[in-house]
Amino acid sequence: MIVVLKEKTEQSQLDNLITWLESMGLSIHASEGQNSRILGLIGDTSAVDIDLLKALEIVEDVKRIQEPYKNANRKFHPADSIIDVSGVKVGGGNFNIIAGPCSIETDEQICFVAQSVKDAGATMLRGGAFKPRTSPYSFQGLRDEGLKLLLKAKKATGLPVVTEIMDLSHIHLFEEVDVIQVGARNMQNFELLKEIGRLHKPVLLKRGLANTLQELLMSVEYIMAGGNNDVILCERGIRTFETATRNTLDISAIPMLKKMTHLPIFIDPSHAAGIASLVKPLSLAAVAAGADGLMIEVHNDPPHALCDGAQSLTPEAFKEVVETVNKIRPYACKY
Amino acid sequence: MIVVLKEKTEQSQLDNLITWLESMGLSIHASEGQNSRILGLIGDTSAVDIDLLKALEIVEDVKRIQEPYKNANRKFHPADSIIDVSGVKVGGGNFNIIAGPCSIETDEQICFVAQSVKDAGATMLRGGAFKPRTSPYSFQGLRDEGLKLLLKAKKATGLPVVTEIMDLSHIHLFEEVDVIQVGARNMQNFELLKEIGRLHKPVLLKRGLANTLQELLMSVEYIMAGGNNDVILCERGIRTFETATRNTLDISAIPMLKKMTHLPIFIDPSHAAGIASLVKPLSLAAVAAGADGLMIEVHNDPPHALCDGAQSLTPEAFKEVVETVNKIRPYACKY
Amino acid sequence: MIVVLKEKTEQSQLDNLITWLESMGLSIHASEGQNSRILGLIGDTSAVDIDLLKALEIVEDVKRIQEPYKNANRKFHPADSIIDVSGVKVGGGNFNIIAGPCSIETDEQICFVAQSVKDAGATMLRGGAFKPRTSPYSFQGLRDEGLKLLLKAKKATGLPVVTEIMDLSHIHLFEEVDVIQVGARNMQNFELLKEIGRLHKPVLLKRGLANTLQELLMSVEYIMAGGNNDVILCERGIRTFETATRNTLDISAIPMLKKMTHLPIFIDPSHAAGIASLVKPLSLAAVAAGADGLMIEVHNDPPHALCDGAQSLTPEAFKEVVETVNKIRPYACKY
Amino acid sequence: MIVVLKEKTEQSQLDNLITWLESMGLSIHASEGQNSRILGLIGDTSAVDIDLLKALEIVEDVKRIQEPYKNANRKFHPADSIIDVSGVKVGGGNFNIIAGPCSIETDEQICFVAQSVKDAGATMLRGGAFKPRTSPYSFQGLRDEGLKLLLKAKKATGLPVVTEIMDLSHIHLFEEVDVIQVGARNMQNFELLKEIGRLHKPVLLKRGLANTLQELLMSVEYIMAGGNNDVILCERGIRTFETATRNTLDISAIPMLKKMTHLPIFIDPSHAAGIASLVKPLSLAAVAAGADGLMIEVHNDPPHALCDGAQSLTPEAFKEVVETVNKIRPYACKY
Repeated sequence: MIVVLKEKTEQSQLDNLITWLESMGLSIHASEGQNSRILGLIGDTSAVDIDLLKALEIVEDVKRIQEPYKNANRKFHPADSIIDVSGVKVGGGNFNIIAGPCSIETDEQICFVAQSVKDAGATMLRGGAFKPRTSPYSFQGLRDEGLKLLLKAKKATGLPVVTEIMDLSHIHLFEEVDVIQVGARNMQNFELLKEIGRLHKPVLLKRGLANTLQELLMSVEYIMAGGNNDVILCERGIRTFETATRNTLDISAIPMLKKMTHLPIFIDPSHAAGIASLVKPLSLAAVAAGADGLMIEVHNDPPHALCDGAQSLTPEAFKEVVETVNKIRPYACKY
Repeated sequence: MIVVLKEKTEQSQLDNLITWLESMGLSIHASEGQNSRILGLIGDTSAVDIDLLKALEIVEDVKRIQEPYKNANRKFHPADSIIDVSGVKVGGGNFNIIAGPCSIETDEQICFVAQSVKDAGATMLRGGAFKPRTSPYSFQGLRDEGLKLLLKAKKATGLPVVTEIMDLSHIHLFEEVDVIQVGARNMQNFELLKEIGRLHKPVLLKRGLANTLQELLMSVEYIMAGGNNDVILCERGIRTFETATRNTLDISAIPMLKKMTHLPIFIDPSHAAGIASLVKPLSLAAVAAGADGLMIEVHNDPPHALCDGAQSLTPEAFKEVVETVNKIRPYACKY
Repeated sequence: MIVVLKEKTEQSQLDNLITWLESMGLSIHASEGQNSRILGLIGDTSAVDIDLLKALEIVEDVKRIQEPYKNANRKFHPADSIIDVSGVKVGGGNFNIIAGPCSIETDEQICFVAQSVKDAGATMLRGGAFKPRTSPYSFQGLRDEGLKLLLKAKKATGLPVVTEIMDLSHIHLFEEVDVIQVGARNMQNFELLKEIGRLHKPVLLKRGLANTLQELLMSVEYIMAGGNNDVILCERGIRTFETATRNTLDISAIPMLKKMTHLPIFIDPSHAAGIASLVKPLSLAAVAAGADGLMIEVHNDPPHALCDGAQSLTPEAFKEVVETVNKIRPYACKY
Repeated sequence: MIVVLKEKTEQSQLDNLITWLESMGLSIHASEGQNSRILGLIGDTSAVDIDLLKALEIVEDVKRIQEPYKNANRKFHPADSIIDVSGVKVGGGNFNIIAGPCSIETDEQICFVAQSVKDAGATMLRGGAFKPRTSPYSFQGLRDEGLKLLLKAKKATGLPVVTEIMDLSHIHLFEEVDVIQVGARNMQNFELLKEIGRLHKPVLLKRGLANTLQELLMSVEYIMAGGNNDVILCERGIRTFETATRNTLDISAIPMLKKMTHLPIFIDPSHAAGIASLVKPLSLAAVAAGADGLMIEVHNDPPHALCDGAQSLTPEAFKEVVETVNKIRPYACKY
């Protein structure tokens, strides 16, 4: 970490600063530029509060040299992490597709879709029981009841299931769920992340709509700091000024995250675009760029889906996407 | 609501659509343009799912004519709402300043700051007990203990207190708190909003970093739909590509929200900029533009604050801000 | 176009509005909603000034039903446009790669790179003579002299050349250039677009860093309205709050533009990321999603390039990208 | 400037780098961190190409310590610049209002508005002759003819005039214009900036819709590097995801630019919001925050203005804004 000092600095203030920094276990390396004077902080700076340093009267600016995340950092764990989801291997060259309806609606619906996506090549089943909806007047999910139906479909098909948690008070309901999904709006729900960090269960963490990749990895740090290392990352579109698509899929997140972290990276083309006809091109793009997996919404009757019908594929369209994905996979980027 | 149909539409599909819309209590008004055919939906469309409609094969686009929020809409409640915070009137021409430290640190600190800001003209006390921090290695707040200290400062000064809730499982701890703050990162934590909607206690709802004003009012709708009408809005900066300031204060939010809603609007200049020297200019700007109040971070010893020291004012600097604010207030915009 | 009227509207004002709209050749279809009254404007509304309408005292809002662009609109020209670039066919199923250095530096450099990229499979040569640089202290390009070197490389290799124009006063220098590139910062330089609209020469128009797809097509409209229909679109990354990459490649622009327009769409992965190691994954992604072509920076000695070295590939790395692109192409999305 | 090296660096490569940096007149200060090795570059680094450095194989990251702009930097010119606009002093505590119509339409219109705004307190007249419009089908301005009418209004009222240039080929037409305006879309039209840098005439440079404050000052650097120091900055709203207003006025730009530069800062509330009723609150906010001036659109008959009528004030409304501005000015922030 580099601390840039203001031009006119009293020696006593500088001495105080150095003493304080040294008390945190850091060694200090001072040097003089043409118009500035800088301090290099040497040691573990991940716990140093940049805002606090910047607030000091004699400090002009502070610049990080090292990333503030440790557990997720590929520098300290060069090999890909491979996560075991009830027997299904995720990451490290394994490719997986999570598919299923946005919302769980009925017994028949979830079981039918589950079997269809399994037949088409999906390796995990998704389905929403608790639904974050912008409007209180929209369908909010079947909640506890939905979870039960999902577990029924799990039993019927043998597919591990992925479903979203919306509040930490629901955590006891997720015991038989294979992967707990933390949605984009909860990416910085730190109380929830801490609680999940104490579990022994894989987590799929979605990137927030306006969050950077570094912030995503800081949220991972909350989970891993608690002892849970089984985190799958998921890019699902970020907010930009473009209005033709619901969000903008950040395809560069794949190669960038592959540099930054050893964790597996999934892409959710359904939420990124919000338009069914874009799911195929975005899926192929994600696979070509080297994603570890896809998460795709599939519904038996998209126009009558209780939520997000606009972005769901029919089982037939999904099958075709999987087939093309498999043709492209041999040529996909590797990291 | 206007539904634009695709050019080639089979009559039977159109009939089905019209029947379905009518079953929702809407009446339909069809008309023909040069290159398009449109349906006008007449009636209460706030529960119509736009995404669902857009997903239909024969629909090209859907456009809302009416706002999707009702309870917060000024059209249906032209008069300003005035909220009673333990005797302090908020909104409707009343002006209030909430001030206090980012984090509650010790008994002495919170009581000293509370008394200072009261003397300078603050009408409510803020102080964080549960702190949302990007890094798990940063100070997370004194939590339950912090709440107790805050209530002590309330008793000592008589100032109503405002403090942030981070999870609905903590709600029982907030009984004696006068205003529950929902932070920017929780603006779309719908489970929390629903729970708060069931309380009889004023709420200060901060706008999310990447949320539109309409989305802010949809989150209000979650609270008001539960029966709690005492909502204070707070703009605290949005995320843009500008990096010189931490966030970008959206000053236009004041006049726009005044048009859209009858609820009071506060500005938090401390979080918006993240820089103490910007608090005064942004405070004066907010007051001139007609804000109902300010929320300002004040700390007795900003450089040693346990969090967000960079944006805190000293009690002396705060006093000077309040004095200038009071000089400008007579000329501020009114709505 | 739909005009939403304010609730309280005097009949005389409404009559005036209707008369005025009819004088523009539009027919008016009025209808009444529950809380609103709307006018449907039927006819060619592309010349109607929405801002002007919104300014009228009795108007609450205006919503477009039809796109404001005509010449580029796929609705009116369903078949793909195929553009002839000095014998090379662009669009309509043809795939092309434009490659070459960011800046033209010397005779040897441009000829060496030109021959390398031709051998590797590039079908057009790029090279910057006029360089838009953020700092006046950075290298600004060889200008006229650079254009001459580029034309020499064209003669030597037979590759058509693409190079950027920075001001309309330079237009006479571009006579032998095969494709005139309009850079992202000039996407809304309307005087330049009008002038280029009068030429009979293919244009490669880059999307601005903060522009929507619709705005891109409105800029195309400036060119096509002048009679020049040979426009190639190029997505090169948009500005977001993400800082790990220089810009964010909007991969969804490919399928969206394919719906909106009949013009060919290229992707520039070099500028989008600003990082050489991201060029391959982004290129593969673009091809899989169905782009009509790529524009890639290649330099014989990237670390010593006079500009943008960070994002240039070596000829060897470029060759490998082309080879993988060709393996993926058979499975790419088609529109 | 700080260069962070990759962990595994060959000594010979490092020696080459140091030799090269020293050849640019810089001295090098190497130091070792826990997980990294850094070089401090001491001397004038404004001409060092960061991208080039980052491209080197042994470099992990590069961080600027000093700002890349010099002439506009307040560090090197602590006193406010005062610009003489045909006798009117701008900056350094002087407050000015530029007012007038978006477009010049007729002799009577521009002379009437000019006299009205002068009577109300405006000190300069604005009026557009060349209009940048998103659609080629919208009114493009009276061009040369418009400039003549503007100069007529200047003669009639004695007000200095400000008008926008759209291309450097028009520069000869601007001889009698007092301030040349460079619009937001041309902020990075570097050829135009260079040409204007050679003139002896004040320039009003608007911030681009998606540009940072540092980029604004780099564009100023283009003008000042040519010898023209008379630059007035103008913030006119940036693009965000908010759609209720046309753009988002970045009010923090005032205090931030006051720190960064010695040049005067104006605010254009008309373009920032695009809504007439927001002009007053945004004007008052700008004045309170310490802007050196305002630029406001005024039209005798806003609903029938040929462009941007939605954001124009009537002369009466403008008069009221000026009166309130004058009441707030004594309490405005000073820098």
